[in-house]
Amino acid sequence: MVRFGEMNMIYILDIIGTIVFAISGALASRERKLDVFGTVVIAFITAVGGGTIRDIIIGHQPVSWLNDSLYIYSIFFGILLTFIFNKTLLKLKKTLFLFDSIGISVFTILGIEKALSHEMNYGIAIMFGIISAVTGGILRDVICNDVPLILRKEIYASACLIGGVFFIVLSILNFNFELNLIITTLIITSIRILSIKFKWKLPI
Amino acid sequence: MVRFGEMNMIYILDIIGTIVFAISGALASRERKLDVFGTVVIAFITAVGGGTIRDIIIGHQPVSWLNDSLYIYSIFFGILLTFIFNKTLLKLKKTLFLFDSIGISVFTILGIEKALSHEMNYGIAIMFGIISAVTGGILRDVICNDVPLILRKEIYASACLIGGVFFIVLSILNFNFELNLIITTLIITSIRILSIKFKWKLPI
Amino acid sequence: MVRFGEMNMIYILDIIGTIVFAISGALASRERKLDVFGTVVIAFITAVGGGTIRDIIIGHQPVSWLNDSLYIYSIFFGILLTFIFNKTLLKLKKTLFLFDSIGISVFTILGIEKALSHEMNYGIAIMFGIISAVTGGILRDVICNDVPLILRKEIYASACLIGGVFFIVLSILNFNFELNLIITTLIITSIRILSIKFKWKLPI
Repeated sequence: MVRFGEMNMIYILDIIGTIVFAISGALASRERKLDVFGTVVIAFITAVGGGTIRDIIIGHQPVSWLNDSLYIYSIFFGILLTFIFNKTLLKLKKTLFLFDSIGISVFTILGIEKALSHEMNYGIAIMFGIISAVTGGILRDVICNDVPLILRKEIYASACLIGGVFFIVLSILNFNFELNLIITTLIITSIRILSIKFKWKLPI
Repeated sequence: MVRFGEMNMIYILDIIGTIVFAISGALASRERKLDVFGTVVIAFITAVGGGTIRDIIIGHQPVSWLNDSLYIYSIFFGILLTFIFNKTLLKLKKTLFLFDSIGISVFTILGIEKALSHEMNYGIAIMFGIISAVTGGILRDVICNDVPLILRKEIYASACLIGGVFFIVLSILNFNFELNLIITTLIITSIRILSIKFKWKLPI
Repeated sequence: MVRFGEMNMIYILDIIGTIVFAISGALASRERKLDVFGTVVIAFITAVGGGTIRDIIIGHQPVSWLNDSLYIYSIFFGILLTFIFNKTLLKLKKTLFLFDSIGISVFTILGIEKALSHEMNYGIAIMFGIISAVTGGILRDVICNDVPLILRKEIYASACLIGGVFFIVLSILNFNFELNLIITTLIITSIRILSIKFKWKLPI
């Protein structure tokens, strides 16, 4: 049986996250009736915006999607899926929500890992986890001329924060990486599901 | 007869593009009744925003306008032109449109050349061509609180895409650089003129 | 008597500026009824946005707040102050205005000093002074979906410009740094107070 190494697993999930975020960007563009080009731009920015700004601030160059065309293909794949399954996608909201949560979890963990590998402390690392996970969506909303959803009413970022803290604590406790990844993803997804079910809101 | 080298020609056109984009930013500011300072900021961001973000993502430092004051002077020159010829400029829309097309063409080609000189592949290079040409306008519209025009209804970026592909194909075929530059500019300008004449729109 | 060195004084004022800008971001978030997370994000971006973009464009890495947790603590301290003294803060507008002017002055001077230390010329240095002082507020307004206040009606940036020119002239004249800092702050604050008192506006 092939056992994925740590990097392989992160990489695969990073690609899944990229596809999911591209879909979320493409769906937002359709609502605003942008044309094909606008859709590509918004999908692209939503998918790689968080990672790009993270890498630029950390000073990690070149930015990851520059040297690996699979990221670009993933974005076009996500857009294609949106165009083909447009109506079905809206019905599949629960599936999408699940993938979106996986995407956010992976991006949070990726941000943390990258910051730690640049010898930053845990507090800053968690911050970069959140930056990786939420910046794409903020840019998407700002360009589409909305106040970013995430700043108004989502428990989204708090889920990243809590998941990120768990991830770091489990890392320090020397948990197996894959297990840690799965636990973190479950935590983030659960918080989001519970928050919707019970209408949790952060205090204003 | 003096024969311009490749760099000289690109440089001269880059300066023309900077002036034209500064004018476009300054005109947008006037419509929104920004004050003098707001006008300078918007003109500046429109003119150098695309190149700056391109250089930062590529990791090409220092950013080009930092070490060459001619870029700054060009921006102020563009603003000055806008203030002096404000009413005339609005009548000269066709002239402006032509210069704007030249600006876009040059910025597309500059982006492609810079990406290629950093050993990126053709697909990524075309992407950076488009980024160079359209980001300034997107930033201008986002800061002025509009959904970027280019994402809504312009054939603008598609023209850059097609022009960029031609430029690369002709480069591979070893066309003379100046000729290639002129052909690319003609293609981009023609697509834009035809798209307005026949009301071409990208599908939503 | 302990005499602060140049760096100590700048550093202390930088921290004060960070706190004040975090408060200004947090106040803007409350007006827009953002939740706790949104408030943290806006306060953070307002406080470090200008310095971050300045450092990225100059190519000065790592970005200053990355290696010094005191910046992060200062931001949370500013947010905490806003939550505790919310109603009082609105009454203390004059005090806040004073601190805000100090913040802007310090950020202007910091930007100038950093640019000069990277061997840029005086014109570019003043530009970076203004970028440091105003970008945080522009990002705050853009994300909150407003046309940036500063581009519409504040004499804000012009005060930075004039203060920056004075600072450079006095530096060239070999004025004592602390004295120069105080004079520049007084100039910027005075211009802002006078502009409000006499309703100065930049021409549109």
